[in-house]
Amino acid sequence: MADQEKNVDSESLKALCVQVLQKLKVPRDEAEITADVLVRADLRGIESHGVSRLPRYAKRLMNGWIPSKAKLTMKKETPVSLLVDGENSLGQVVAYRTMERCIEKAKKSHLAFAAVTHGNHIGIAGYYAMMALKENMIGLCMTNAWPLVVPTFGIEPILGTNPIAVAIPTKYAPPYVLDMATSVVPIGKMEVYKRHGKPVPVGWAIDEESQPAVDTETVMRCVYKTKRGGLLPLGGSEETAGYKGFGLTVLVDILSGILPGAAYGPYIGTPDDPKPSNIGQFLGVIDVNAFTPLEEFKERMDLMIRTIKDSSKAKGQNRIYIHGEKEWELEAEYRKTGIPMYIKVWESLRDLAKQLELDFHI
Amino acid sequence: MADQEKNVDSESLKALCVQVLQKLKVPRDEAEITADVLVRADLRGIESHGVSRLPRYAKRLMNGWIPSKAKLTMKKETPVSLLVDGENSLGQVVAYRTMERCIEKAKKSHLAFAAVTHGNHIGIAGYYAMMALKENMIGLCMTNAWPLVVPTFGIEPILGTNPIAVAIPTKYAPPYVLDMATSVVPIGKMEVYKRHGKPVPVGWAIDEESQPAVDTETVMRCVYKTKRGGLLPLGGSEETAGYKGFGLTVLVDILSGILPGAAYGPYIGTPDDPKPSNIGQFLGVIDVNAFTPLEEFKERMDLMIRTIKDSSKAKGQNRIYIHGEKEWELEAEYRKTGIPMYIKVWESLRDLAKQLELDFHI
Repeated sequence: MADQEKNVDSESLKALCVQVLQKLKVPRDEAEITADVLVRADLRGIESHGVSRLPRYAKRLMNGWIPSKAKLTMKKETPVSLLVDGENSLGQVVAYRTMERCIEKAKKSHLAFAAVTHGNHIGIAGYYAMMALKENMIGLCMTNAWPLVVPTFGIEPILGTNPIAVAIPTKYAPPYVLDMATSVVPIGKMEVYKRHGKPVPVGWAIDEESQPAVDTETVMRCVYKTKRGGLLPLGGSEETAGYKGFGLTVLVDILSGILPGAAYGPYIGTPDDPKPSNIGQFLGVIDVNAFTPLEEFKERMDLMIRTIKDSSKAKGQNRIYIHGEKEWELEAEYRKTGIPMYIKVWESLRDLAKQLELDFHI
Repeated sequence: MADQEKNVDSESLKALCVQVLQKLKVPRDEAEITADVLVRADLRGIESHGVSRLPRYAKRLMNGWIPSKAKLTMKKETPVSLLVDGENSLGQVVAYRTMERCIEKAKKSHLAFAAVTHGNHIGIAGYYAMMALKENMIGLCMTNAWPLVVPTFGIEPILGTNPIAVAIPTKYAPPYVLDMATSVVPIGKMEVYKRHGKPVPVGWAIDEESQPAVDTETVMRCVYKTKRGGLLPLGGSEETAGYKGFGLTVLVDILSGILPGAAYGPYIGTPDDPKPSNIGQFLGVIDVNAFTPLEEFKERMDLMIRTIKDSSKAKGQNRIYIHGEKEWELEAEYRKTGIPMYIKVWESLRDLAKQLELDFHI
């Protein structure tokens, strides 16, 4: 562990998050949902989407930019679909409650999809997709986000990093969990690189002149100040099929933004913008049994995963990772050993606790 | 037009395909479906998936490797789902009939998804997704395919180029049609590069030593002979997030292969393999009205497309293309002017017509 890191117990961390949120008048159950989503990201090694985001949420709550108690209204409902108005509430609570409803519906109707309007940032999309795993169902979650990504042949960062997450049950193998920004990397990864003072690999982002942006300062300037240049969509340049990542980014914006009538692309505010972000989500659940007996499906999943993992490795590699595998292993480890937390994140939580006159023991 | 190309009228080309298939005892309606899918690919500029594939299909029919008359059995059905056994029939016919059923179901139940087992190659996945546009619905089509793609940190080409296609209605703008292999490029593009004698750009494929494969001969040797090296998943190397493309490839294999109980990855035979390919598909239809009034949705789609297209261009670029846009324009043009066809493809059709004792006038 680097000397700029602290080791933090995950349960204590979660308790602190709950306390912070409760102090800001968030009801206990909603504080627990939000805290669980944040800590789960850190447990799974996705520090860019973990408790480092709490101060931002706290700021929005403190300033009254979002209501403390979540409201969500079902605007339209069928046995297989749901249109939810999140009424600018905490994104985690709205997405969690919506996914719960999808699971209930899918138990009766085999499929259920929901679109959320007037939502907020939800943390890791994978969390909600993984909720379906408890019921042995396939879970899906997409969300749009504030604009950071440059379209193919364009120069303005007018699209979000719009992630797609899908979770699929297995028998003994770790469940398959794909949770990916549709850009090469999410902006959170850039923030992590900035904290660690690392250069940006070529192919992740471009500057105002469409040249590779090789340091985090350039990327931040492009996306937040000059609004020319920014993150590249998955695939990178046009020659290496960046238009496919661009297409996926737009697809997520259509299903999470256009379909429920939320904002999209350039119309979504950054986290520091006081106005409602009006982010949208698209969530779904598929009952495997509608197609094939669950046990057979899960056995086939294990066999497929085994087949891929057992195939020959590239020179210098000794392991092929299936999606979610690294994260399940990290989660098991960090639950025991604690989460390695960058000192600046730890300090920001300490300052927040102090400001709210809370004890700080993590 | 290069002197190695012929200009071919699309209606005459389709008529020839229908004749070829009918001569091989395919019923007229099924021959027309298959011909329409093939010619539509050429009309949309996707020559890798067009009539150049007809000789392969003809060979399978001639040798009795697939039945002339399509059979498909509904194995399991709910108001929103369908499990179809394609019984090794022509892939186009099975996918077309299945999508028709999905559309019918979605009209009543708002959503419908279908999984196909014992299927075959279906041509462009976008064709079936676009079928939903006629009903102003969102269409989805995925299919797995024979193994050509190397997993991240692996060296064996054990995964298909497994495309994802989504078609979404608009008001006046050309409908959004994403139709993408989950590898950087499909193998068909490599075949086109081979025909044109072009080198392979770095980032598309790797050789036996995990080095960039820069000529088509190397790629073909890797995927079909040595079975080491092959196409890269979307994103390319691990550093530029190739594991995301790898994840999407596996996702398509799960939904189209594992879910219906079809073959997957290394177990799918190449087109020249006499045994049933047992390719699988996953198709779906979403009724926009379940979430939002259709007209509002379509107006918002147009506005979003306009917003992206009107954003500033990168130096040297004067246009941002939305997915499907180039293809709609080509289709309109080629329907009038004819399709430019590579001479070797034209010759292969002429030889096929001769073998079947058919007139050849294209």
